[in-house]
Amino acid sequence: VTRITLLTDFGTRDGYVAAMKGVIAGIAADALVEDAGHDLPAGDVTAAAHALAAYWLLYPAGAIHVVVVDPGVGTARRALAVRAAGRFLVGPDNGCLSPALATDPAAEVVAIESQLYLRSSVSATFHGRDVFAPAAAHLARGVVLGELGPAVADPSRLEGRQPRPTARGLIGEVVHIDRFGNLITNIPGGALAPGHFIQIAGHGPIPVVRTYGDVATGELVALVGSSGFVEIAVASGDAAARLAAERGCAVVLAG
Amino acid sequence: VTRITLLTDFGTRDGYVAAMKGVIAGIAADALVEDAGHDLPAGDVTAAAHALAAYWLLYPAGAIHVVVVDPGVGTARRALAVRAAGRFLVGPDNGCLSPALATDPAAEVVAIESQLYLRSSVSATFHGRDVFAPAAAHLARGVVLGELGPAVADPSRLEGRQPRPTARGLIGEVVHIDRFGNLITNIPGGALAPGHFIQIAGHGPIPVVRTYGDVATGELVALVGSSGFVEIAVASGDAAARLAAERGCAVVLAG
Amino acid sequence: VTRITLLTDFGTRDGYVAAMKGVIAGIAADALVEDAGHDLPAGDVTAAAHALAAYWLLYPAGAIHVVVVDPGVGTARRALAVRAAGRFLVGPDNGCLSPALATDPAAEVVAIESQLYLRSSVSATFHGRDVFAPAAAHLARGVVLGELGPAVADPSRLEGRQPRPTARGLIGEVVHIDRFGNLITNIPGGALAPGHFIQIAGHGPIPVVRTYGDVATGELVALVGSSGFVEIAVASGDAAARLAAERGCAVVLAG
Repeated sequence: VTRITLLTDFGTRDGYVAAMKGVIAGIAADALVEDAGHDLPAGDVTAAAHALAAYWLLYPAGAIHVVVVDPGVGTARRALAVRAAGRFLVGPDNGCLSPALATDPAAEVVAIESQLYLRSSVSATFHGRDVFAPAAAHLARGVVLGELGPAVADPSRLEGRQPRPTARGLIGEVVHIDRFGNLITNIPGGALAPGHFIQIAGHGPIPVVRTYGDVATGELVALVGSSGFVEIAVASGDAAARLAAERGCAVVLAG
Repeated sequence: VTRITLLTDFGTRDGYVAAMKGVIAGIAADALVEDAGHDLPAGDVTAAAHALAAYWLLYPAGAIHVVVVDPGVGTARRALAVRAAGRFLVGPDNGCLSPALATDPAAEVVAIESQLYLRSSVSATFHGRDVFAPAAAHLARGVVLGELGPAVADPSRLEGRQPRPTARGLIGEVVHIDRFGNLITNIPGGALAPGHFIQIAGHGPIPVVRTYGDVATGELVALVGSSGFVEIAVASGDAAARLAAERGCAVVLAG
Repeated sequence: VTRITLLTDFGTRDGYVAAMKGVIAGIAADALVEDAGHDLPAGDVTAAAHALAAYWLLYPAGAIHVVVVDPGVGTARRALAVRAAGRFLVGPDNGCLSPALATDPAAEVVAIESQLYLRSSVSATFHGRDVFAPAAAHLARGVVLGELGPAVADPSRLEGRQPRPTARGLIGEVVHIDRFGNLITNIPGGALAPGHFIQIAGHGPIPVVRTYGDVATGELVALVGSSGFVEIAVASGDAAARLAAERGCAVVLAG
């Protein structure tokens, strides 16, 4: 069985997600479609890339990951299909596939252009249905990546900033706010040492703990999250709301 | 493999959707269940029909589409099973299956009444679990449509209004507002000609473009959407919020 | 085919749910993963148990139900795997699996501890990915429950209160508020008799009807809901909002 995952900002109150699933079913009758999520903030390519990073490589080789967060749909932006670390990825050329491109420097990237693998009529506003779903389904049927279109040498990549050492400590930033209000930073967990603490937006020192339940409900803590980076959380609470924090807020690791 | 899609207004914070999936699994062990969406506005039959229209025919023949937006559950309203264009549809007789009935004038329609294909005890408030899920699962197992119950000659249909020509131009209306805040109208894309523009609620002339990305972020535009009808959008924004528009708002195509 | 259901409070705008699905796909290539729901209120174990109760036993024997609402992740709370009534359940030892434990007094319960069936590195904050998903996938592959770890004699159970008879009538409480705003109580439907009515929070007598559509839109009614308990609803409306009711509110059945 080949699994195809779908990550979009389509929500689940219109028929857009099911339209993609219907197209896939019509081409690759045996493929298993799994929802990665459809509630990404509208047009938020950075959030899409962050979500994708959490799962694409956990799927076994052969899995096909479709990402459609596509504010540039219908413009000259290319439609990409990628083979990275044995997995396939399909989505617009706007940086949403960055995690796979960054992980596998030998990733093959093509622009989806062959008429054979598109819907017969391609709309200007719904490439999820007309371009990405059919491309993914054809890959599931065994079509070779290079058949979809010409190689692309310069796919878009989101440039993640690295934390920088300063006299005050290591200065990073919030790169994602998750559903629980946890603030995920770009500071690698390996940078933490005993005695270190975290500061953000005038708050701190925030103590570093191992897990949420190590402190009383409502306390502000820092810990190494599931992706290996430092995150700021409130035990049984919402750190983003508490701190009125946004993506891009500076975070300092000191000690 | 037979695919069964589920479209409901049940949300995904109760166990209602999974109850339907469990019933299906118990009857049709090999069926693949795919979520079409569960976040329809509560009781909004019109929104259900609009969502269904986007995908039911994209699935291959043999697919089974279940729609449960059912404010009349437990009353005298019938439970329907339909065969249209080779696909099956199951849902309450309240108009939610209108897209299939409109597309295939030769659609077969029956009322689900045979005790053989219902749960042994049918509640008054959850026909998704007790009537529609088992009917869909039995269809997936190969039960013939007519076995489910007697033919129905007069299934409910939502009466979509047609746009009408006037001295000011073609007057249509907003028939759906999607997750992005795009206003989908009942004006067919084919009615557009060069030089035409759109007016709504005192706004306009709104220019017609090919896709969202053809204008700067924040601009109000009209375009032919993915279902072939004119829609009004804000590039990287929310037209419904900007215009305080609702379903039923008049839209004028002039030029 | 073995079905694995997932019920979490992860939402669907991060990659957390898909991370679990990827781990499962890597271990049990043929398992079918079905979403039960991911929009539970964050950390709400009671809501998780209530949702689980609606579907776990509707799935056929052999199904595997994963529940991850886990405010104590990474602390000393155990990770459980359960075999009850022929179904399997996997989740934290915080009461979320109570419905299965209550239904089958002979349920087998083990603590998931064997390194063989965990991810090679277990994070302190994401046992959905590192403990529960792999355990479920190994069960789907046929691993015997007892292989996962030692037997547990005292799994956590949520103590549901029973309604109590008083001079005013039978006094129960609201145990769940669903997506429609219906107030589900702990008063069994069998306690209702002709002439009975319901009171809550100074409202009442609220008449008992058979289904929502038996009264005009906007009327407050009581009825026996799909789980067999009395619930309070507003026809085509939201009873929780109307009554400003919360879980735990007292409800009186009198007559």
